[in-house]
Amino acid sequence: MNVYELIKKKRDGLELSAIEIRSLIDGFVGGQIPDYQMTAFLMAVYFSGMSSAECVEMTMAMANSGDQLDLSAINGFKVDKHSTGGVGDKTTLVLAPLVAACGGIVAKMTGRELGHTGGTVDKLESIPGFQAELSKGDFINIVNSIRVSLISQTVNLAPADKKIYALRNVTATVDSIPLIAASIMSKKLAAGSDGIVLDVKSGRGAFTQSYGNAVELAKMMVGIGTGAGKQVVAIITSMEQPLGYAVGNALEVQEAIDTLRGQGPEDLVDLVTEIGGDMLYISGLAASREQAKSRIHETLLNQSGLKQFKKLITAQGGNPDVVNNPLLLPRPMTKVEIRSTDVGFVSAIDAMEVGMASKNLGAGRQTKDDLIDHSIGIVLKKKIGDNVTAGEVLAVLHSDGKEEKIEAARDRLRAAFSISPKNTDPPKLIHARVTEDGVEKL
Amino acid sequence: MNVYELIKKKRDGLELSAIEIRSLIDGFVGGQIPDYQMTAFLMAVYFSGMSSAECVEMTMAMANSGDQLDLSAINGFKVDKHSTGGVGDKTTLVLAPLVAACGGIVAKMTGRELGHTGGTVDKLESIPGFQAELSKGDFINIVNSIRVSLISQTVNLAPADKKIYALRNVTATVDSIPLIAASIMSKKLAAGSDGIVLDVKSGRGAFTQSYGNAVELAKMMVGIGTGAGKQVVAIITSMEQPLGYAVGNALEVQEAIDTLRGQGPEDLVDLVTEIGGDMLYISGLAASREQAKSRIHETLLNQSGLKQFKKLITAQGGNPDVVNNPLLLPRPMTKVEIRSTDVGFVSAIDAMEVGMASKNLGAGRQTKDDLIDHSIGIVLKKKIGDNVTAGEVLAVLHSDGKEEKIEAARDRLRAAFSISPKNTDPPKLIHARVTEDGVEKL
Repeated sequence: MNVYELIKKKRDGLELSAIEIRSLIDGFVGGQIPDYQMTAFLMAVYFSGMSSAECVEMTMAMANSGDQLDLSAINGFKVDKHSTGGVGDKTTLVLAPLVAACGGIVAKMTGRELGHTGGTVDKLESIPGFQAELSKGDFINIVNSIRVSLISQTVNLAPADKKIYALRNVTATVDSIPLIAASIMSKKLAAGSDGIVLDVKSGRGAFTQSYGNAVELAKMMVGIGTGAGKQVVAIITSMEQPLGYAVGNALEVQEAIDTLRGQGPEDLVDLVTEIGGDMLYISGLAASREQAKSRIHETLLNQSGLKQFKKLITAQGGNPDVVNNPLLLPRPMTKVEIRSTDVGFVSAIDAMEVGMASKNLGAGRQTKDDLIDHSIGIVLKKKIGDNVTAGEVLAVLHSDGKEEKIEAARDRLRAAFSISPKNTDPPKLIHARVTEDGVEKL
Repeated sequence: MNVYELIKKKRDGLELSAIEIRSLIDGFVGGQIPDYQMTAFLMAVYFSGMSSAECVEMTMAMANSGDQLDLSAINGFKVDKHSTGGVGDKTTLVLAPLVAACGGIVAKMTGRELGHTGGTVDKLESIPGFQAELSKGDFINIVNSIRVSLISQTVNLAPADKKIYALRNVTATVDSIPLIAASIMSKKLAAGSDGIVLDVKSGRGAFTQSYGNAVELAKMMVGIGTGAGKQVVAIITSMEQPLGYAVGNALEVQEAIDTLRGQGPEDLVDLVTEIGGDMLYISGLAASREQAKSRIHETLLNQSGLKQFKKLITAQGGNPDVVNNPLLLPRPMTKVEIRSTDVGFVSAIDAMEVGMASKNLGAGRQTKDDLIDHSIGIVLKKKIGDNVTAGEVLAVLHSDGKEEKIEAARDRLRAAFSISPKNTDPPKLIHARVTEDGVEKL
């Protein structure tokens, strides 16, 4: 194989064969193809795009590049979910026990994160004693006993993706739809579930800001997953403001608990109902999407998802009493209220900036090995469309008391809020569903 | 400086500032910017192009990246020439002494080459005793005494270009007009002459195959040179067949000598007259281009260019008797005639294939350190438009007698000739002149 010819072909907008794509990925992972040829190829993909056949082949080659999670020791249809990333997105914490309570099977590997969005593993580790790093055997036993387990990604899933992503990240080739699709789906395919519901965010706080790009990404991922023999559905949702009110690890666990108790914020409940409904439907646990959504709705009201969450916490070594006693979750040293100087209506909340303000406060890691203070974060008191009077609280910082961190976060957070004299409707949250059959507006 | 931002800007079609371009090139040469970021940048340039301001800045940064030849110890206007590369192109051998005989000053560094085209230094070294590797002091002394010297590129001219070219060569980013322009002009600017006449080849045997691309490249190079305060003219010429009849080192020296004696092939004489005329004109040695071309024409007829060539050979340690005695040049072991099996007219001669056939025979190097057999090459007996009868000689191989080399070259050379029953006119050789003022069709 001549790498030069492959780069040139892609540069000239021609389609690479399955063998060409596979030898490119394998050669790169094996160290025969140097980084400087891969980055030229990636930039050529940025400009020339990829056919869906190419994208499927690239994803499969990446999925095959390392360990693959074998879930065959778990009977039944395993269902996974994935979000392209949002601020305040604690849907996995709610959905995993909720879907299990409805009879679904959720054997999910999930991540720690560095960026402006928190990782589900970090959130779970707010719960005293919770163990996210389990052996594969323990993981499978727990799922076989209570239909759900959430563990940290310990095996070497899709190392090709890790290596390629590191290069994309420093060469301005991250925001290419086929490359995003291959990156996400390679890990999902290697993680072994039978069905996947994708939450593709669009809007100012998302990777794919435009609705059109989000739909294109969703179509590509559904095509890849279907091509690999999986049941895949994507929901296009809005990331115009943080999801729910809580941003930060322990705060998000608390909001997830409230939601499982039937007392969740409206936007989070809507999203959980839509995604959870699809998770049940593709698992074959409901005759229609409507019926599946009703099941989710009932299960929130009867709190059996909350019971399942307690079982999950217990099974993974955590203290299940956090569910009934919020004081058992990490508490901040101090709280600081951010008040409005303007009068009017909240017209926008920049989700990215809220995420960064939370990071400024110390809710995230600076480096991979930092310990996290799980108590830190932000609670929004107002969301888009809410009325604001002068001096009213917009948000509360949960802080470790370090003045310089508070200062940085305070200014950032204030700037994230836009207050307008004119009333604004809350943004529409759920835009469309993308399946193998096409795009359905919601 | 954030390299990521520079790559992204170029990717998005935005213009980089002078400071950004300079820090990119300096950082790359200094080793702070890794190859994998540079190749992503180069591929982004391939797609997004470069403004002429960007291209000027990149060229200057590359020209400044290493040694620069200081020709200030030579009084008067120093004129250089450059060809984008062709098969059988021995114009430098003719023009350097010819222009010097007319009063011009040619202090020129020239190259050895690896590809399908020969290097002027290799050709000169066919002359017994000729020394191309002189000290800078000797070089300047020779020019000050006889107005001409041709030496091998010994100093470290534009190392940024060498480093960037090596990456372009393996990442399919060679054929980008701004990158070609910056590569050529960085070396020309570092080589220190006051004026440069560029011969930009178009057609099947050239880098820029289309006339439009050749004009675009010429405009960009003229813009760069003018921006750097040089007198620059470009001539767009055709590379539809080899130039003249001889291909190979000693064979081309002989054809250059014949031309300086007033007995050159028509196409070579035409090209030498056009380029030489411009070299004289920009040197301020003629009142008009027409007058300059007449001077060149007269000088070919009165053979004073040939006398100058003898002086040049003598000054650089060679045996000047080669000029009058062809037997003193290296002679091949054997000659093999290639005969036509068809009847008709030569309608095409693939210059690239003729160059490769000559290389198959052993006229070039396989690796940088190989010794060259200067006697080897090809003499064409027919050119486009010539009548051919069955069994007539199309070309003669000058060979070292190795049968397998002859076989490879014979087939290749035969396939390079197209014979058609219909008469074809010879292709137009000189298409246009590009100056600061615009494009003039010729």
